[in-house]
Amino acid sequence: MNSSVRQNAALRWDSGRLSILDQTLLPHREAWIELRGAADTAAAIRCLAVRGAPLIGIAAAYGLALEVAASTTDAAEPVMRELRDARPTAVNLAWAVDRVWAAAQAGGADAARAEAERIEAEEDAASAAIAVHGADLLAGARRILTHCNTGALATGGAGSALGVIRELAARGGVEVLASETRPLLQGARLTVWELARDAIPVTLTVDGAAAGLMRRGEVDAVIVGCDRVAANGDVANKVGTYTHALAARAAGIPFVVAGPTSSIDPALASGDHIEIEERDAEEVRRPGGELVTLPDVPVRNPAFDVTPAELISAFVCERGTARPPTTAAIARLLAS
Amino acid sequence: MNSSVRQNAALRWDSGRLSILDQTLLPHREAWIELRGAADTAAAIRCLAVRGAPLIGIAAAYGLALEVAASTTDAAEPVMRELRDARPTAVNLAWAVDRVWAAAQAGGADAARAEAERIEAEEDAASAAIAVHGADLLAGARRILTHCNTGALATGGAGSALGVIRELAARGGVEVLASETRPLLQGARLTVWELARDAIPVTLTVDGAAAGLMRRGEVDAVIVGCDRVAANGDVANKVGTYTHALAARAAGIPFVVAGPTSSIDPALASGDHIEIEERDAEEVRRPGGELVTLPDVPVRNPAFDVTPAELISAFVCERGTARPPTTAAIARLLAS
Repeated sequence: MNSSVRQNAALRWDSGRLSILDQTLLPHREAWIELRGAADTAAAIRCLAVRGAPLIGIAAAYGLALEVAASTTDAAEPVMRELRDARPTAVNLAWAVDRVWAAAQAGGADAARAEAERIEAEEDAASAAIAVHGADLLAGARRILTHCNTGALATGGAGSALGVIRELAARGGVEVLASETRPLLQGARLTVWELARDAIPVTLTVDGAAAGLMRRGEVDAVIVGCDRVAANGDVANKVGTYTHALAARAAGIPFVVAGPTSSIDPALASGDHIEIEERDAEEVRRPGGELVTLPDVPVRNPAFDVTPAELISAFVCERGTARPPTTAAIARLLAS
Repeated sequence: MNSSVRQNAALRWDSGRLSILDQTLLPHREAWIELRGAADTAAAIRCLAVRGAPLIGIAAAYGLALEVAASTTDAAEPVMRELRDARPTAVNLAWAVDRVWAAAQAGGADAARAEAERIEAEEDAASAAIAVHGADLLAGARRILTHCNTGALATGGAGSALGVIRELAARGGVEVLASETRPLLQGARLTVWELARDAIPVTLTVDGAAAGLMRRGEVDAVIVGCDRVAANGDVANKVGTYTHALAARAAGIPFVVAGPTSSIDPALASGDHIEIEERDAEEVRRPGGELVTLPDVPVRNPAFDVTPAELISAFVCERGTARPPTTAAIARLLAS
């Protein structure tokens, strides 16, 4: 059985061994974890050691391929379901698991492995195409706000929204304003780390400051990723995204969503039907690790929110741009 | 020389001695600090040991009265100026310092002390009146979102926005959603602590989650305090406030600002002219104390933002309600 080597910033597939960079330790430590099957991978997804909708899909594809190679269908099926349900909001996870599982049923372990590698290759290519489409769309924008992390730590290749930002930087200069992205601070921990490694100028701010800075004319455009795009163009993305969309609209600047077509869920009529994951209260009670409030205070901790399509200037995917992302425009992208 | 005893949740004036509760240590520790003059008080204001626009005014009034009693006019004047400039955005600080200084020039130390006590008595009474006006306005609202801390830790008496919430609770049941208020987490640290002591139900959430919860119909009204209100009704308040105002408007729920008339600055035509304090980058880099990002990442850390009057349903002060807070309605309140 043949196996390629694939290495990106946060996931390594080498001779049939799957490792991920433990993103919970960034930016302080770079430690890799080997994942040996679907249960390991599900656990790594749940605790956010691996994260970002497209990268979750890739990791799950490889994790399931390993499971299938080591197990019977009957034994693999319950762990496949556990993996598929590890996080509910991003559609890429179920999409990748379903593809690899179908390949395994049709062609066994070799087919499953080939399908997982195909998924990663497709996602890498999608990132590259998104970067070009997005940079074309945002030509002239210099001061870009982004939320959460949508770079090489979150996708195949160089990123979705952050891939666009990298392409804009390569074309001639961009300044990034990164919102820290409470509760888990992916902006502060991951986006700042990625951009600093690429020597792209980045300034950090708290989530609540972004709207005021937009209002004061300090931002030219906002670009974010997506965890699930409904048929009507509504977008579920990291909590705090909707706020930035409202502020961008009020400031009269573009609000752009970037992601692969694997993030589109055409079966979902609108964002109102997207299941929003509610995560552990301790993420809110302990910003950066230290308890800052009463230990037993009740918490609401939705991991995502929904931005209605009418606030989105454009949705950019590897097949092009839906501008604005109407139902018809999304359908055209899917059919192309 | 006679001296009254005044005690509120976070400031004690007893026989001419001024102490404040060190709010930087809450909710973990309750420690009081004695302030012996204007320089001490300025330092406590700068580091946010004492905070909240009205309480800053009260503390500064007493701190200056102590300074005047112990010093000549020539010696006191530079520390008076240092105190007046300790924080730039809230107008209450300069207003209180100017009142006590004028009293000292006219009538010496006794007059300064009497003026400081008068300021505290006025602010206490203002809080009580605001609570009634605000609760009348919000009758029927049960699920209330508030930002930062505007309670007994921030004002004279029981609070501005939190005073309204206390009054609503006394009238029959309210559930509070407190946004944590990054960077310094006054919602998580102070509002949760105050409401828990009063047995008012409170749920904590990150700032970026509030908009999505409003969109999902989980909030009946938003009420916040203010650091400076311009003549046209624009409001400077803790960073993140503007975001909540945008989200409330989009959700079709009331967005109410509560504060004493001492927070109105009639000399300021609009919010665009309000100086916004930029605070230390470490507040952003170290949520809750731990470094979560690269140690040298540049930071934007505005402590406040401006919410335009057109997003504000009503401004509530001790003299009544400006609904909406137009230039004419604000002028009527000031003239009444």
